[in-house]
Amino acid sequence: MPSDLTAVCLVCTLKPSPAESSAELLGSQLMDALEAVGVSGTTIRVVDHDVKPGVEADMGDGDEWPAIREQIVAADILVMATPTWMGHMTSVAQRVLERLDAELSEKDDLGRPNMFDKVAVAAIVGNEDGAHQITAELFQALNDIGFTIPAQGVTYWNGEAMGSVDYKDLEETPPKVASTTKSVARFAAHLAEVLQSARYPVPVEG
Amino acid sequence: MPSDLTAVCLVCTLKPSPAESSAELLGSQLMDALEAVGVSGTTIRVVDHDVKPGVEADMGDGDEWPAIREQIVAADILVMATPTWMGHMTSVAQRVLERLDAELSEKDDLGRPNMFDKVAVAAIVGNEDGAHQITAELFQALNDIGFTIPAQGVTYWNGEAMGSVDYKDLEETPPKVASTTKSVARFAAHLAEVLQSARYPVPVEG
Amino acid sequence: MPSDLTAVCLVCTLKPSPAESSAELLGSQLMDALEAVGVSGTTIRVVDHDVKPGVEADMGDGDEWPAIREQIVAADILVMATPTWMGHMTSVAQRVLERLDAELSEKDDLGRPNMFDKVAVAAIVGNEDGAHQITAELFQALNDIGFTIPAQGVTYWNGEAMGSVDYKDLEETPPKVASTTKSVARFAAHLAEVLQSARYPVPVEG
Amino acid sequence: MPSDLTAVCLVCTLKPSPAESSAELLGSQLMDALEAVGVSGTTIRVVDHDVKPGVEADMGDGDEWPAIREQIVAADILVMATPTWMGHMTSVAQRVLERLDAELSEKDDLGRPNMFDKVAVAAIVGNEDGAHQITAELFQALNDIGFTIPAQGVTYWNGEAMGSVDYKDLEETPPKVASTTKSVARFAAHLAEVLQSARYPVPVEG
Repeated sequence: MPSDLTAVCLVCTLKPSPAESSAELLGSQLMDALEAVGVSGTTIRVVDHDVKPGVEADMGDGDEWPAIREQIVAADILVMATPTWMGHMTSVAQRVLERLDAELSEKDDLGRPNMFDKVAVAAIVGNEDGAHQITAELFQALNDIGFTIPAQGVTYWNGEAMGSVDYKDLEETPPKVASTTKSVARFAAHLAEVLQSARYPVPVEG
Repeated sequence: MPSDLTAVCLVCTLKPSPAESSAELLGSQLMDALEAVGVSGTTIRVVDHDVKPGVEADMGDGDEWPAIREQIVAADILVMATPTWMGHMTSVAQRVLERLDAELSEKDDLGRPNMFDKVAVAAIVGNEDGAHQITAELFQALNDIGFTIPAQGVTYWNGEAMGSVDYKDLEETPPKVASTTKSVARFAAHLAEVLQSARYPVPVEG
Repeated sequence: MPSDLTAVCLVCTLKPSPAESSAELLGSQLMDALEAVGVSGTTIRVVDHDVKPGVEADMGDGDEWPAIREQIVAADILVMATPTWMGHMTSVAQRVLERLDAELSEKDDLGRPNMFDKVAVAAIVGNEDGAHQITAELFQALNDIGFTIPAQGVTYWNGEAMGSVDYKDLEETPPKVASTTKSVARFAAHLAEVLQSARYPVPVEG
Repeated sequence: MPSDLTAVCLVCTLKPSPAESSAELLGSQLMDALEAVGVSGTTIRVVDHDVKPGVEADMGDGDEWPAIREQIVAADILVMATPTWMGHMTSVAQRVLERLDAELSEKDDLGRPNMFDKVAVAAIVGNEDGAHQITAELFQALNDIGFTIPAQGVTYWNGEAMGSVDYKDLEETPPKVASTTKSVARFAAHLAEVLQSARYPVPVEG
């Protein structure tokens, strides 16, 4: 299934490189699974870049979001990879959503929101619970911006309640997580390919 | 754009017929918009039926879910229409999700979850805020079950904070809500049509 | 620490008695812990009663909510015990919140919402994740109605991601869950006692 | 009602000073209402300070969180004021929660989490809906850290669905919002005072 689809993975850990990150691990497993179905990609650890607070596409003055944004615009699939803190996605992940808010007013040459025809999926880790809630908030926000969410578009791992084990410290990837990761890649690639040849119509003006 | 796509709208108001329902109104506006792009459909007020608590496809003994379920299985698009109570979707909407949980273990003839290749969208009303959170939880749950969420797949209305006006009592439909409703119909119909001719691959076994 | 504080536990499982329920088990452990600090109580499995959909204190015609409501009004502490389905509290728990919505317009003899000076805590179980999100929605809704939430007012257990083990089938209660349950009881009893002798002032009229 | 209670308000707008902020406006109205019932306080616009990502009390190297943290530790009441972006609290608010996560392992001289006996309330604004969901997530996280949530502990304003008006641009504060703000101040001050003279017991060790 060779294609020229591309994906970009935004790893939303709070830890700058080179610290090990469970979110980066699960995100990279999903990127590998995408590669295996013909989707090439790039992974960006967002906290390594100076992404300014705000809701514009470019906040000026050292803002490193525009370079990240360009890679999202160029890609067919967005992977949001985030750890769980206090049961929530990280402040880094929420900042990405805030910056993507600007895309609602940016139209493509057909008059549609900039992020149309793109697919978004998620990869979530945590030593404690939160994956379903984070999935909910990511899907709602990314969908609002214009991304399409493929069937069963999330892979995740969290430990038992009140636990403290990290995904990166597991002896092996739980088989169900491994197979879910591969399935998410398949579904995302399928939907992205389909949307490339059958673009959404324009919204009705309000 | 004639098609043979069909939609089913589950109205999740707490009020049995024939009481007027804001959720039914917005749901019916979305169904009209779907009709206008060639999608025929049926609307069901769930609370008029005895949907038993549980997570099986058939809870036996007077359970009226199986008849509703059949219509979802037959349709290409599911519209979930719910009011907002305490900032949440209704108990009726959550019951629908619980009953759909059974579909995760039901496979179609290709070995995929039963609800694959179907599209889900939402219509949410409230005299107070809640639409974004309800959208989040509906998308996360419906996506988990296997539905695909089209770009910008929700139409909604809620009044200003601490308000008490109902959508059904507005003098006219706000233009932005009206156009959003039409856009959601377009996007859902587009995606449903595309998925009918490009079915998802099977998940990877875990 | 003898007191005349009382608690009522609403078990929001989807399964009617006498089926075993993990939510009932954790709820009863919390009630035992409350008993140990001098709070006597009653446990009600809500699904065994015909609680009608609606947002009035009495929906008439066979509605069994008023009898449950009376016990909440009489108690100092409300324990909400719910399992996790689709990552959410159950439809039964949401129905309880919907029925409590009526209390916002019911005033006590001081002109305060009916549920003032009462404390609410939660007990949440699931074979999969959801406890933090359910905690969030329970606290927001119960607090809106007038309940006070004591420090660290929730005990919970959920299994590892994509798991299928039930709390009731664990060989033993995890020590951290057991100690958390006891702590929640202590904090709730402390706060309830304090509020009994230092009642909230009246709200400012809007 | 003179007291020596103190409050600190963390304004979590994305906009650095001196830009006008709706969240700061509602936060300051709540601080004024607290002042009127005898609680003195300080307001901090968090984005004006370099709060590093992470979950430690001090992330070193230019981290300005420790100075903010000290003020929270010294105060009896924490006010979290946040705007709504994408239906969520801001990345700045979530960062505050992440940094407060460290307090779970910090014990006071009685062996209790550092933030015990403190009260937390919220002030939320948005041109679109989100206040109930943000309330939920703030209460769950702050309560987890050890804060107590007083009855009806939130004031908020958001405009009608799909709107674009800011709270700061309203011609006058809606009367219901104004009275709610005053009530929240009363309830928070009452509870904080009560907790100062009736401190929580220690948690049960796990």
